[in-house]
Amino acid sequence: METTATQSNLLVKMILMAWDAQNNYLNKLISSLTDEQLSKEVSPGKNTGIYLLGHLIAVSDGMLPLLGFGDRLFPEMEEVFLKNPDKSGKNFPSVSELKQRLKTVNAKLNTHFQSTDVDGWLSRHTVVSPEDFAKEPHRNKLNVVITRTGHMAYHIGQMRLLN
Amino acid sequence: METTATQSNLLVKMILMAWDAQNNYLNKLISSLTDEQLSKEVSPGKNTGIYLLGHLIAVSDGMLPLLGFGDRLFPEMEEVFLKNPDKSGKNFPSVSELKQRLKTVNAKLNTHFQSTDVDGWLSRHTVVSPEDFAKEPHRNKLNVVITRTGHMAYHIGQMRLLN
Repeated sequence: METTATQSNLLVKMILMAWDAQNNYLNKLISSLTDEQLSKEVSPGKNTGIYLLGHLIAVSDGMLPLLGFGDRLFPEMEEVFLKNPDKSGKNFPSVSELKQRLKTVNAKLNTHFQSTDVDGWLSRHTVVSPEDFAKEPHRNKLNVVITRTGHMAYHIGQMRLLN
Repeated sequence: METTATQSNLLVKMILMAWDAQNNYLNKLISSLTDEQLSKEVSPGKNTGIYLLGHLIAVSDGMLPLLGFGDRLFPEMEEVFLKNPDKSGKNFPSVSELKQRLKTVNAKLNTHFQSTDVDGWLSRHTVVSPEDFAKEPHRNKLNVVITRTGHMAYHIGQMRLLN
């Protein structure tokens, strides 16, 4: 059987692979959709594809400060895609601009992901207090990746209905 | 910093917590939907809520043999909810029957989950060959839980459109 250090590395790798898999799926999905399809609601009266795309980018962008990797790259997206719902009347960037931002955010995240070791991943993220973290050590940086992976899958399932 | 054995245990726990979170979300969601809502399509021309619920149960049930925990509890669901699409003309169990099956499958899975240690989780599942597993040790039992968690989130996102 493997050493426990190898086991920890493998477990971290598996979690990051699941994150990558969802991102790859998202990229493939948005490549397969026309701008017109993305502008449609995923179901009558529900969010549009473009809003969900912006929402996912804004959430990924927010992982930078949350994980201590730096400031948001597109802070203005928070207002449009997180604090406000679809059809708020706010202007959305174009689909091609959003696709570019998705690439930019993921490239930045990946650089940091690759230089984070197991101890770094299991350290406290910036929103949990040291006191709470002492009691709940699962509230670490890697857990943010796990929950965000599920969040992305949830919205990909909806965006998948556009084609 | 924690010992690496503690780290491995924590990482496994985080992955199982993500699985539980999706299952809790699914339970909450189906409790909030009427039978009539569940019988509707999540978007025009797409799958119905009841088909997706059956599909998720059949996938979870399939984890029993895949993880070496025993036979499927509801093998007949494979034909209806995995091998055939919605509106295949096959009879579906009632919503209340499906809700009961979901509980039964999850109870059985949980019993096994709780008695599996880190070495067990990182061992080979029944579909990957020993040769492939030697090259790709991430294709272990716990990785099945990770991918199924994402799969569940994907369909929950769709079922969420029913209310």
